[in-house]
Parts: sequence; structure tokens; C-alpha cells
Amino acid sequence: MGGTALSFDIQKSIQILERTPAVVRAMLSDLDPAWTLAHEGPETWSPFNIVGHLIDGEETDWMGRVRIILGDNPDKRFAPVDRFRHLEVAKGKTLAELLDKFATLRAANVAELKGLDISPAELALTGEHPAFGTVTLEQLLSTWTVHDLGHIAQIARVMAKQYKEEVGPWEAYLPVLHR
Amino acid sequence: MGGTALSFDIQKSIQILERTPAVVRAMLSDLDPAWTLAHEGPETWSPFNIVGHLIDGEETDWMGRVRIILGDNPDKRFAPVDRFRHLEVAKGKTLAELLDKFATLRAANVAELKGLDISPAELALTGEHPAFGTVTLEQLLSTWTVHDLGHIAQIARVMAKQYKEEVGPWEAYLPVLHR
Repeated sequence: MGGTALSFDIQKSIQILERTPAVVRAMLSDLDPAWTLAHEGPETWSPFNIVGHLIDGEETDWMGRVRIILGDNPDKRFAPVDRFRHLEVAKGKTLAELLDKFATLRAANVAELKGLDISPAELALTGEHPAFGTVTLEQLLSTWTVHDLGHIAQIARVMAKQYKEEVGPWEAYLPVLHR
Repeated sequence: MGGTALSFDIQKSIQILERTPAVVRAMLSDLDPAWTLAHEGPETWSPFNIVGHLIDGEETDWMGRVRIILGDNPDKRFAPVDRFRHLEVAKGKTLAELLDKFATLRAANVAELKGLDISPAELALTGEHPAFGTVTLEQLLSTWTVHDLGHIAQIARVMAKQYKEEVGPWEAYLPVLHR
């Protein structure tokens, strides 16, 4: 990493945020449920669960926290995230419905984010995270971006692991099977 | 995993193989070079390098080995893979050109694979891997599938790590930054 890592850049972050729904759709749309419902074992998430979790983030997490940081209310405390809400979000829904819902919510949130036209000074404004204490808007937006990429990597990894035995000796050359 | 893992299924494998070009395009097309040329440090690959490597696999690795296993020549030895050929593949090319080339090559290879109409009995036929010795067609096709998913995960991870410091205390909640 060192000198090669990006510094935070809101435009470059938005580039990632706005393409995630298309990435997840390209990965999962019309794919056999043997892939989309597969997981890594008890208490782990399937691609289907992950899309539900991404929807939950759009509804309850990211932009809500941006609004707290930038808003007039002096109480800057974030509500804790409910890591099980994705189950409720997805109840009775097909994957196709979830993919559409995520795309719609994300598009609206990115439009709102762009409309805020956040200045460099505003990036240093803070909120109160229930576990970490004071965090900046820049850290929140960086986390939103990395969170997307982490779940894209997770979807690919969960599906890859379904063939852990099937690859035979090649397992040694496929680090994704050991993460 | 246990009872939840898929058994090898050629149709389900083709579902992954045929969508990878669209996934990689959705992730990288028109993205700022600060993301697409980013890497994890010396001797590691950028998303740009990875697309070159995927092209190399289409040209020299996967289908060539399928043909060796299924063909009439009794010499079933695979040529070793040149892990640096991607540099030559990509020389002077833009990322857009590489994404197009990968899509074209993959479409042709998947069409050829489908046309082979591989039977369950043929999946047990073997080739000779330069490091592992005897491997089956099923293991080769499983590996091709997992290889795609591993590189999709890698692209996401490499980009995520560019914000490793920018996320501040959230680093603790983002395992993709520690892989």
C-alpha cells in the first residue's frame, strides 16, 4: 500500500457506491438458487442474505448517519445497527425483488448524497458511534464504500467455496477457498 | 459447508463463467484509474492486471486444457501457466479494450464448452498437471469457476484496501481490509 493508496475522494467514492447495484445484479440475477442460497456454514450469510443486508444499510444506516452528522440536531449519536434486520427486509421476497429494491434505494441515496455537495470542511464533522465514539463524515463515507466492496468480495467467496472439494489439488492455488 | 455445498454441475458452472465478463465490466468500466490501477503493494496485482490475467487464461489455459483432456492425443500433459503473460497481453491496451477482449474471448470459449456437451463420464477423464499430476476434467472446470470468483473477490478487496486508513475505527468491522 504505502504511497499507492488513495486519499479519500468523495467523487471517487460515489463512483463505487453508484455501481454496486449493477455489480451485484450482474453476479446474481437469474443465477441458480444453489448459488444464491449457498453459505459458508451455520450463522453465515448467503448471497441472498447479503443483498438483504445491503438494503437494510440503505434504509437504516448510511444516509441516516450522514444526516445526523450534517443536521442541526446537537445530539449526534447514531442508532446501533441491527445485523439481523436483513431477515425481516427479505421476508417473502424473491432475489429479483431484492436486487430491484437495492438498486432503487441506492440510486435515491446517491442522488441525495450528490445533492448535499459536501465540502472538504464538512468531511471533518463528526457523529457519535455506539461502539467507537467520535467518527468523522469522511470515515463514514469511506466505510460505506469499503462495506460495498467487502460484500461483493464476500458474495464471490461464498460461491467459490461451494466447489472447495470439487477443485481437487488446485485448492492449493486458490486462496479464496481459505479466507 | 458440509451438506450445503454444491456438487459439481456443469450447467451451474457455466452460469458463473458466462456472467464474469459482465461482473468485471460493472465493477471497473469507466472507473477512475486511481481505483483500477491501485494494488496491495509491490508484486501484487491491480484490477487492470487482473483483467489481463483473465484474458491470458482464456487464450492459453482453460479451454486448451479441456481440449487436451478430451482430444485424441495420448499426451495429456498441460503446458505450465505463465503468470506474467498478462503483462504482455495488456501492453499498450486501455482497460476498456481489455474488458471488451475478455468478454469476446470468454463468450467464444463458453460457446465451445457448451458445444462439447460434456457427459458425466467425460468429467472423469484426466490430464497431467505440471505440478499436481493427474487431474480430472471436473476438477479443471470447477477450478475455472472458482478462479473467476476468486479474482472478482480480489478486485473488490484491492479497491477496498485503498481506504484502509480512511475508514478510521471502522477498520475493526471490515474483514476485507485484513485479507
